[in-house]
Amino acid sequence: MREENPLKEKPKLPGLPRSLPEGRSIDPFIVMDVMAEANARQANGEDIIHMEVGQPATPAPRAARERARNALETERLGYTEALGMPALRELIASYVKERYGASVGPERVVVTAGSSAGFVLAFLAILASGDSLGLPSPGYPCYRQILKALGLSPRLIETSAEGRWMPSAGDVDRLAAEDAAGILLASPNNPTGTMVVGDRLAEIAAACRRKGLWLISDEIYHGLEYDAPAETALAHSDEVIVVNSFSKYFSMTGWRIGWLVVPEALVRPIERLAQNLYISPPTISQIAALGAFDGIDELEAIKGNYARNRAMLLEELPRAGLSDILPADGAFYLYADVSRFTDDSEAFAKAMLRDVGVAVTPGIDFDPDRGQSYVRLCYSGPEASMREAAVRIGAWLKKQ
Amino acid sequence: MREENPLKEKPKLPGLPRSLPEGRSIDPFIVMDVMAEANARQANGEDIIHMEVGQPATPAPRAARERARNALETERLGYTEALGMPALRELIASYVKERYGASVGPERVVVTAGSSAGFVLAFLAILASGDSLGLPSPGYPCYRQILKALGLSPRLIETSAEGRWMPSAGDVDRLAAEDAAGILLASPNNPTGTMVVGDRLAEIAAACRRKGLWLISDEIYHGLEYDAPAETALAHSDEVIVVNSFSKYFSMTGWRIGWLVVPEALVRPIERLAQNLYISPPTISQIAALGAFDGIDELEAIKGNYARNRAMLLEELPRAGLSDILPADGAFYLYADVSRFTDDSEAFAKAMLRDVGVAVTPGIDFDPDRGQSYVRLCYSGPEASMREAAVRIGAWLKKQ
Repeated sequence: MREENPLKEKPKLPGLPRSLPEGRSIDPFIVMDVMAEANARQANGEDIIHMEVGQPATPAPRAARERARNALETERLGYTEALGMPALRELIASYVKERYGASVGPERVVVTAGSSAGFVLAFLAILASGDSLGLPSPGYPCYRQILKALGLSPRLIETSAEGRWMPSAGDVDRLAAEDAAGILLASPNNPTGTMVVGDRLAEIAAACRRKGLWLISDEIYHGLEYDAPAETALAHSDEVIVVNSFSKYFSMTGWRIGWLVVPEALVRPIERLAQNLYISPPTISQIAALGAFDGIDELEAIKGNYARNRAMLLEELPRAGLSDILPADGAFYLYADVSRFTDDSEAFAKAMLRDVGVAVTPGIDFDPDRGQSYVRLCYSGPEASMREAAVRIGAWLKKQ
Repeated sequence: MREENPLKEKPKLPGLPRSLPEGRSIDPFIVMDVMAEANARQANGEDIIHMEVGQPATPAPRAARERARNALETERLGYTEALGMPALRELIASYVKERYGASVGPERVVVTAGSSAGFVLAFLAILASGDSLGLPSPGYPCYRQILKALGLSPRLIETSAEGRWMPSAGDVDRLAAEDAAGILLASPNNPTGTMVVGDRLAEIAAACRRKGLWLISDEIYHGLEYDAPAETALAHSDEVIVVNSFSKYFSMTGWRIGWLVVPEALVRPIERLAQNLYISPPTISQIAALGAFDGIDELEAIKGNYARNRAMLLEELPRAGLSDILPADGAFYLYADVSRFTDDSEAFAKAMLRDVGVAVTPGIDFDPDRGQSYVRLCYSGPEASMREAAVRIGAWLKKQ
């Protein structure tokens, strides 16, 4: 008898039968809102340079597209097994072996509908309602929003530019003392592009093992490094969950195809979740991914473009007025301190888009506490556009 | 200090840093397990007839595949807006108008990564932790598994063959008395293929409005009806959530592309969830879906095959020994009472697959209480195979 409990009566929105739950209310993924606005302006005839969304300007490698094209003519493209096509799981296992020297049986590889689905599966498989997970801040905003949407608790770990925006083994100890269930780490990190250096990853893995904490390693930007290659957490432990994707290095964002490497005991719980939550990853994307590994030459050339853009921007942006940027080791992002100009990065990004048509992402997407002082610039676009962006930003900053 | 609380110490699986949460542990989607076994037997040279998975034997319509092929050559295939490509949202709104006469603005259409993602988005948008939702039983098993995985409570409504396996307005009243947040209805229903008749849907919608309950209408099998056309819940209320998909009528299961129609006040909460949970639905699938509406002639011909299979099986299966089947009004399923032969439908289905290579799905996937007495047969395959299946089943049942 709901009427007898007035506390349960929240005002409902017009047109809805009852009120919406407050607990699950999450923030937008701001970059998607920026992209929607940038697209609307572009459709309106404005000359927009996209540095907001983290995605390659290039299509999937030719061999991937060829596979997809053939499948369109010859295959039914029905559901696959929930864990992914066996041939793709095997190919991913071979790639892991070849790239890192880590021996991972194909039975530990889970093909997912993008790394997004990988996070949902991993979180639901290992975390009970209310469990908390340590997340580096600044970091990919969807980590904390997905956790909140699922009734789980993000616990932000404040990192700093001095430590290359990376957590440490000490953070693991603190999380354990606070009874967190695990820690998530991304190297290269989004939005900073920075990587763990020295023995940091080994130390974190050891601390997790010692304290009985989960280690989730987001390796989605592996392949995009400009100095030393990125290390996989699999080199230090078989108990970790590795999240990866064909979106970034393999230039296949819109295909929504990624993978997990998980401990054997997690495979069946994750399979049950995947079967029920999405049945199977998109079939044509799985088939295209089979060809992606044949496109390494193409992908290395694309990476060469990123490297040139990165070098150019690290020279031009300081001249333009954005002097406080850590030279990122990987991914295709620069995270610029704009505190000299604003204490409201969202308004700053909006004004820049409106005034000079350069779309960047406000730092608050990545760091709710200190993000008002930062913007993220994605340099995956064509070199001429990136160069033009630096010019526009320079002219605009002079007027701020 | 975890050591001080022995209740928290559960045995951990070997190879995992800590134990897995029990609360979220869900059952497999059994049909996927049956499919995996049927595929393994097929790969092993056995002659398998697939009647287990609910999917067309046909590829996407030609026009959809053409669109995809062109996009492979001309488009980058990056992320789209989280709610889907504006052109596709508009086309879906036009289709809803044309098919049902219901005026739904494109802003109320949400393109989703299959209806699976639609359920996740809808449940998370409207239900708080612990909230319960009424579900018809027998029904699509993922409803209850997704709810459980998300920390929500399925409340099963026992329906019966006499009522065409459909819930009633009385069930809504009972759910309201038990403080459930809403009810989910599927017509045509999976696994039974039955539909609501008469004023039942209008009465349920009215009861939901009166009691302030959500009504989620799963209309994924619309288009596949063999007598009267299926009614949309949108005809009775604008406050409902309608779930639909390109998988079934449009013959595009593996593309993982579907849609929701939601009340306007739900659009932004759902957009925030979609942005964070999966960024955007697969782009090539969205583009293919743009062409799907041009394939209606092809799709009607495919539906003609289903109708012939249905008529043939409703004649042959009773002769073969499966006499207790309701002539289903829609979808491509028959739900057969096998209690004369077994009280363990899972063992029954396994034995049938092993002995005569016909894969069917045990009823316990759809009805945990009474499903041991039923199996579901999907008749979307080629007519010759369906006919051969009836022969094999008849020969096999004689020996039981």
